[in-house]
Amino acid sequence: MDRYALSPMRDLWTLETQYGRWLEVELAALQALESVGVVPQGTYAQLQPRVRVDVERILAMERQVGHDLVAFLWVLEEQAGAEGRWLHYGLTSSDVKDTALALVLRDAVDLLREKSAALCAELRRFAQRYRRSPMLGRTHGQWAEPTTLGLKALAWLDMMTRAHERLARARDTVAVGKLAGAVGTYAFFPPRAEELALASLGVEACVPAGQVVPRERHAEAVFAIAAMGAVVETMALEVRHLSRTEIGEVSEFRPEGSSAMPHKQNPILSERLCGLARLLRSSVGPSLENIALWNERDMSHSSVERVLLPQTFTVADFMLTRARELVAGLEVREEDMRRRITAAHGLPFSEGLLLALVRSGMSRREAHTRVRRVAMRAVAQGRDLAQLAGEDPQITDRLSAEELTRISRLPDLLREVDTSFRRMGVGD
Amino acid sequence: MDRYALSPMRDLWTLETQYGRWLEVELAALQALESVGVVPQGTYAQLQPRVRVDVERILAMERQVGHDLVAFLWVLEEQAGAEGRWLHYGLTSSDVKDTALALVLRDAVDLLREKSAALCAELRRFAQRYRRSPMLGRTHGQWAEPTTLGLKALAWLDMMTRAHERLARARDTVAVGKLAGAVGTYAFFPPRAEELALASLGVEACVPAGQVVPRERHAEAVFAIAAMGAVVETMALEVRHLSRTEIGEVSEFRPEGSSAMPHKQNPILSERLCGLARLLRSSVGPSLENIALWNERDMSHSSVERVLLPQTFTVADFMLTRARELVAGLEVREEDMRRRITAAHGLPFSEGLLLALVRSGMSRREAHTRVRRVAMRAVAQGRDLAQLAGEDPQITDRLSAEELTRISRLPDLLREVDTSFRRMGVGD
Amino acid sequence: MDRYALSPMRDLWTLETQYGRWLEVELAALQALESVGVVPQGTYAQLQPRVRVDVERILAMERQVGHDLVAFLWVLEEQAGAEGRWLHYGLTSSDVKDTALALVLRDAVDLLREKSAALCAELRRFAQRYRRSPMLGRTHGQWAEPTTLGLKALAWLDMMTRAHERLARARDTVAVGKLAGAVGTYAFFPPRAEELALASLGVEACVPAGQVVPRERHAEAVFAIAAMGAVVETMALEVRHLSRTEIGEVSEFRPEGSSAMPHKQNPILSERLCGLARLLRSSVGPSLENIALWNERDMSHSSVERVLLPQTFTVADFMLTRARELVAGLEVREEDMRRRITAAHGLPFSEGLLLALVRSGMSRREAHTRVRRVAMRAVAQGRDLAQLAGEDPQITDRLSAEELTRISRLPDLLREVDTSFRRMGVGD
Amino acid sequence: MDRYALSPMRDLWTLETQYGRWLEVELAALQALESVGVVPQGTYAQLQPRVRVDVERILAMERQVGHDLVAFLWVLEEQAGAEGRWLHYGLTSSDVKDTALALVLRDAVDLLREKSAALCAELRRFAQRYRRSPMLGRTHGQWAEPTTLGLKALAWLDMMTRAHERLARARDTVAVGKLAGAVGTYAFFPPRAEELALASLGVEACVPAGQVVPRERHAEAVFAIAAMGAVVETMALEVRHLSRTEIGEVSEFRPEGSSAMPHKQNPILSERLCGLARLLRSSVGPSLENIALWNERDMSHSSVERVLLPQTFTVADFMLTRARELVAGLEVREEDMRRRITAAHGLPFSEGLLLALVRSGMSRREAHTRVRRVAMRAVAQGRDLAQLAGEDPQITDRLSAEELTRISRLPDLLREVDTSFRRMGVGD
Repeated sequence: MDRYALSPMRDLWTLETQYGRWLEVELAALQALESVGVVPQGTYAQLQPRVRVDVERILAMERQVGHDLVAFLWVLEEQAGAEGRWLHYGLTSSDVKDTALALVLRDAVDLLREKSAALCAELRRFAQRYRRSPMLGRTHGQWAEPTTLGLKALAWLDMMTRAHERLARARDTVAVGKLAGAVGTYAFFPPRAEELALASLGVEACVPAGQVVPRERHAEAVFAIAAMGAVVETMALEVRHLSRTEIGEVSEFRPEGSSAMPHKQNPILSERLCGLARLLRSSVGPSLENIALWNERDMSHSSVERVLLPQTFTVADFMLTRARELVAGLEVREEDMRRRITAAHGLPFSEGLLLALVRSGMSRREAHTRVRRVAMRAVAQGRDLAQLAGEDPQITDRLSAEELTRISRLPDLLREVDTSFRRMGVGD
Repeated sequence: MDRYALSPMRDLWTLETQYGRWLEVELAALQALESVGVVPQGTYAQLQPRVRVDVERILAMERQVGHDLVAFLWVLEEQAGAEGRWLHYGLTSSDVKDTALALVLRDAVDLLREKSAALCAELRRFAQRYRRSPMLGRTHGQWAEPTTLGLKALAWLDMMTRAHERLARARDTVAVGKLAGAVGTYAFFPPRAEELALASLGVEACVPAGQVVPRERHAEAVFAIAAMGAVVETMALEVRHLSRTEIGEVSEFRPEGSSAMPHKQNPILSERLCGLARLLRSSVGPSLENIALWNERDMSHSSVERVLLPQTFTVADFMLTRARELVAGLEVREEDMRRRITAAHGLPFSEGLLLALVRSGMSRREAHTRVRRVAMRAVAQGRDLAQLAGEDPQITDRLSAEELTRISRLPDLLREVDTSFRRMGVGD
Repeated sequence: MDRYALSPMRDLWTLETQYGRWLEVELAALQALESVGVVPQGTYAQLQPRVRVDVERILAMERQVGHDLVAFLWVLEEQAGAEGRWLHYGLTSSDVKDTALALVLRDAVDLLREKSAALCAELRRFAQRYRRSPMLGRTHGQWAEPTTLGLKALAWLDMMTRAHERLARARDTVAVGKLAGAVGTYAFFPPRAEELALASLGVEACVPAGQVVPRERHAEAVFAIAAMGAVVETMALEVRHLSRTEIGEVSEFRPEGSSAMPHKQNPILSERLCGLARLLRSSVGPSLENIALWNERDMSHSSVERVLLPQTFTVADFMLTRARELVAGLEVREEDMRRRITAAHGLPFSEGLLLALVRSGMSRREAHTRVRRVAMRAVAQGRDLAQLAGEDPQITDRLSAEELTRISRLPDLLREVDTSFRRMGVGD
Repeated sequence: MDRYALSPMRDLWTLETQYGRWLEVELAALQALESVGVVPQGTYAQLQPRVRVDVERILAMERQVGHDLVAFLWVLEEQAGAEGRWLHYGLTSSDVKDTALALVLRDAVDLLREKSAALCAELRRFAQRYRRSPMLGRTHGQWAEPTTLGLKALAWLDMMTRAHERLARARDTVAVGKLAGAVGTYAFFPPRAEELALASLGVEACVPAGQVVPRERHAEAVFAIAAMGAVVETMALEVRHLSRTEIGEVSEFRPEGSSAMPHKQNPILSERLCGLARLLRSSVGPSLENIALWNERDMSHSSVERVLLPQTFTVADFMLTRARELVAGLEVREEDMRRRITAAHGLPFSEGLLLALVRSGMSRREAHTRVRRVAMRAVAQGRDLAQLAGEDPQITDRLSAEELTRISRLPDLLREVDTSFRRMGVGD
């Protein structure tokens, strides 16, 4: 896991940060209670300078009392003296933990959004740069019709933009806290104090409050991340395919060698990104299992979250960082890309021939059969489709030599590329 | 599967409907091509009355040519005569299949949204009805503090509302088609014709077009449905718990008996809903695996979708239908709910006692320890917490008998229930 | 789903078959009870000819009484007359359903085992046939060292053999029934009668009996199938890679064309198999969720099984059938495979050069660096590794021209292929 | 994660251990090569004392050369001097990594097996102790017929025994190494040397060798662990249910309190175990995705394994440890269990009444209807089933008062408990 943990994301998930967030919430709650008159005036001012996070002491106390938040509280009360009794007034553990988690999630999603925005910007640049760089499209691993590398990147940009927006929505969904006491009835903590405290912490109120913030909110964020991971996987998979030795149209900036075979140039960053997408994917299931709790709550979701939330966010952060590097540093062999179209025996132009025949009045089925036959011959003999078509009287009866030549004109075939860029709002 | 398939959802996923949608798309494309002058004037008018879906003929043709859409096309061309050659002009199979799928998904999501709206309305009514019906809250399966059944339902309403909104967003995400030809370059099908055709079909354009509509769109819909399933599971799980014989606070409208034990009243609808939520959950993984395709496309997603999309939507439709019936028909035993609070030896009021001691100046830790001791005694002896507290001089020194009585006043503890309803916009 | 359902597997999962199995179990139980003296002598002989499965009547009865097995039972009792009261004596629904399911699972696993054995046999033949057919090995999508197509197939055979064995174990695990009554105490159905009935049905006893057969047994079978699916996926993925236009070393027997591009030869069977592997994979999660039931049982597993068990077995059956066809019909281009090794600029022999230098006394690190440099030059200049090595004085100082030639001798590099075959017990 | 990591399992997964295992493999390979004459006599003796793991130096080297195993190797070569060039002779990185992983997995599985055996022993003791402790069985959360706590535990023992056996099998499956060089052809590393090296390391040979050990082996281990997790979940879920305040038949040895409600006794260990089972479950999907690699290998599985394997084993180790403590320390309230049967208004005996009527000649359907009616009355009026039956002339016509009394005799109903124990081989 360490291998995939970058700062500052990593630091959001340490025990120290967690306790710090708990303290922030307890203090905000205290101050708010003082504002609404539940706690005596001046309590916050007296107490605040005295309390601080003491990780070792808290862990020792937890071993003694067997409850992490109670341990945290007793340590604070030790530090605070008599006023310390007002800490946690009217609150239940989930108030503190779930609200503190919301602070972490908010910041963690913000970090991811920053990086997904940067990746989008990189993709936009990449798409612009290779907008008109022709290459063979491939479907089912087989040569299809020409496209451009820019169009490929435009599709990535589209998916990554949607991934970015899902993250933005997920932020609103998870950046909610609650300070409503056990079972969420505000029996001892007034709604007005909750409003004040959450405002000062910078999160919205979870309405209605329950004992816990509903976990269907967290699941949405985990899915948004997993879907983002699948978009990175899409790009990485394309890099792996295009950098196959036989294709060789792109390669990673810094491919990895091999301990045994000194000639190797392995696209292992792309492979790693594909693997990590599986990890993210696998987090959605338990996140959905975490939603249905017993009555006002049970704690079965807790152990899952302790492991999966840091892991999911950390891995996502790593992926977005590296994916941007992958795109920014990708080595593109435009000449080889172009050459492959030329050397493809005219196969990429078989539809053009088919449609020319259709226009000439031939039935589609007959045209399809005839062009297929010519294409199979082109492959078998290593000759050109148009040339072979020019030897078929059924075709030459209908199409002139000039018409046969025209089917392979790239500017015609790619004339609408700009339309796609314009629709996506990507300029020159 | 049949057991969980209700009409009209079921009918959206038949082979007949699929071919019907394909035909719709082919005809819309043809008409649009005619409008922009690619296809001769009058072609659509001549051709349209001649073509229709002939399931048996198409299947027979498929066995012969080994490609479902090509088979479909040859059958149409047979029906249409010479003009039939203009069908599918400039299109690739994915144009037709993905756009047709978008039509089905749009209608299927609309059906679900109708039902999730109805379920929300039912939950709103239920919440209003039991707004002030007190019952014990429970956390970790243990008695906690009082709440109301209405508050419980308010939490369901909140989650189901979010589920409904996710479905609404998913509709926009999946109701997109593309008519851009192989690899999505519009080489032979002008963008303007795509606009016209999609507008007549009532879906937006997928921008940028690729060979296929990106599968990350479909994954979002599947997740929205799975999350909705988890919300239904939440409600069903609560019904199962509250209808345990020992609890008996609610029961299903029509619980199931047993072949062996004639006295049984099993909440099997709720159990079934919990099971189906697992099914929905399990569809998210493959939907995410479906996103990263090879180059412009491969077909690995297709078999997954053929099975999972009908299943996911059909099961979701069943769940929403039955969940509404579950809520609408739920038998609630308000008297028993209330009686349980009273008979709980005052345990639900332990926090009130704790906080009263804190207010009186006792440290929280000491108050916690002392109240815990009293509570343990209450359980052991089957006596009341307040009564036992009244025998502890450390407590009676600080709290009057009247103060001890006040901790169990339900109207005090539930006084903010209306606030939660108001915040959720649920009136009387 | 129909698209992937082949007979006879499909027929095992119909409603008619299900009722037939229920009847089998009820009759076997009755006969056994008669043997041990619980039921009067002659009851079975009188009753057996009168009862039969009447699907429509049972479904109608179920609509009336709301319990599928009770409905089934009342219909049998109608048919049987007074003796019918002895049917289901001492049993609970799960006795009948779980034991009947065991019969279906046993037969379904047997079908799969037959097909996995056939696939193993096919792989064995394939491996033997191409045992010494050299081809480039590839790692990370990059050319590695030579191997043979037979070795590749040997690895598949190994994995499929293990998959087959897991299926065999799963058969023993799931082919267990129980006739022990509600909560599994044999309160009214003697253990001796269970022994007799299960023996006549051909399944083992589930020991200890509970209300239900534990679902961890079924999960093991589902995993065995999913792992088998991943093995098929491995083969299908290889076919997809090797049939890429740029590689072209194999192709499917009957690749699919395209509606738009008449030249296409798409390996869609392999793509379909890869997709179906995802489906199987996704069934493991819910199968594991199905294990932890409430107390003696709840019914949440039931809806999951109704959908997933038929689907999992049917898809697996389809995959094994088609995978065998894929292997049997695979078109292999041995000449092209061999030519690629020759045309690889000697890169596949870089380790040989490295090790020759090591043997000559050069440090591994220096040898690695030096060979890498030569290899990069070979790629850039399109020249041969050994030839370029022959121009490096640091190398020629240590290695003779003959030694440089020897590194690319295929018989040397592949001399241990037979060892691998021998170890796997695959003869000539 | 730290929270769930216990020693010595934790120590198996450190970076230091990993490098140590790599060294072990490199040395074993060297020694074997010397034995078969590939490496000069005396090399191992000279080299072995000079090399050792230097984590910091390796990490620094990796930052420089960008390949973890190459970095490891260069550091060893630095330490070893000229003889160091013979390290890794004929090997590829996967030889070292996969074989080293096999050593770790073997030890990790052994640790789990030790703990699962201990848990089985604990369950056996528990089952024996409560063999004849009657309690209400419950199905669908509703009172069913009497059973014993021992029978419940016997079912857990059965499942855990199967889980243990699956672990044992998984050990054989994953404790396999390979030293066959790139693409697994033994081109430079003789099979005989592999035999010697693997024997000295204590693992079997992976036959046939490929570039990597097939990942379907690892997936089997991960599933075995996930299934074990589901068995622990089964027990934990039962504890949670039975310790509900309303049921109160068992409680955890050391339930957790609450920060807000001093009276709470939350079964949080059981809740935690249920959560962790979800984690384990979610590891199976990516393990299955890891199986189908590209050609001889790609590296996409690696990042998944780096995260999931340590996590899966560590969590499993924690669960087995704590599950045993849970069972060993479980507080059982036998008196309350027994009292509940008595206070159940005779409902648990409804089948006995039904069957008595059947024996008397009444049709099952009529008997079922009649007993159901009596049972509903018993619930509504809080009276006893047998008593109410005694007021129904249709029943008293057929059954004597003594017969009505007999239906509730526990020794009769539980007379076969010993049979189940005997069949499971659990003595007194």
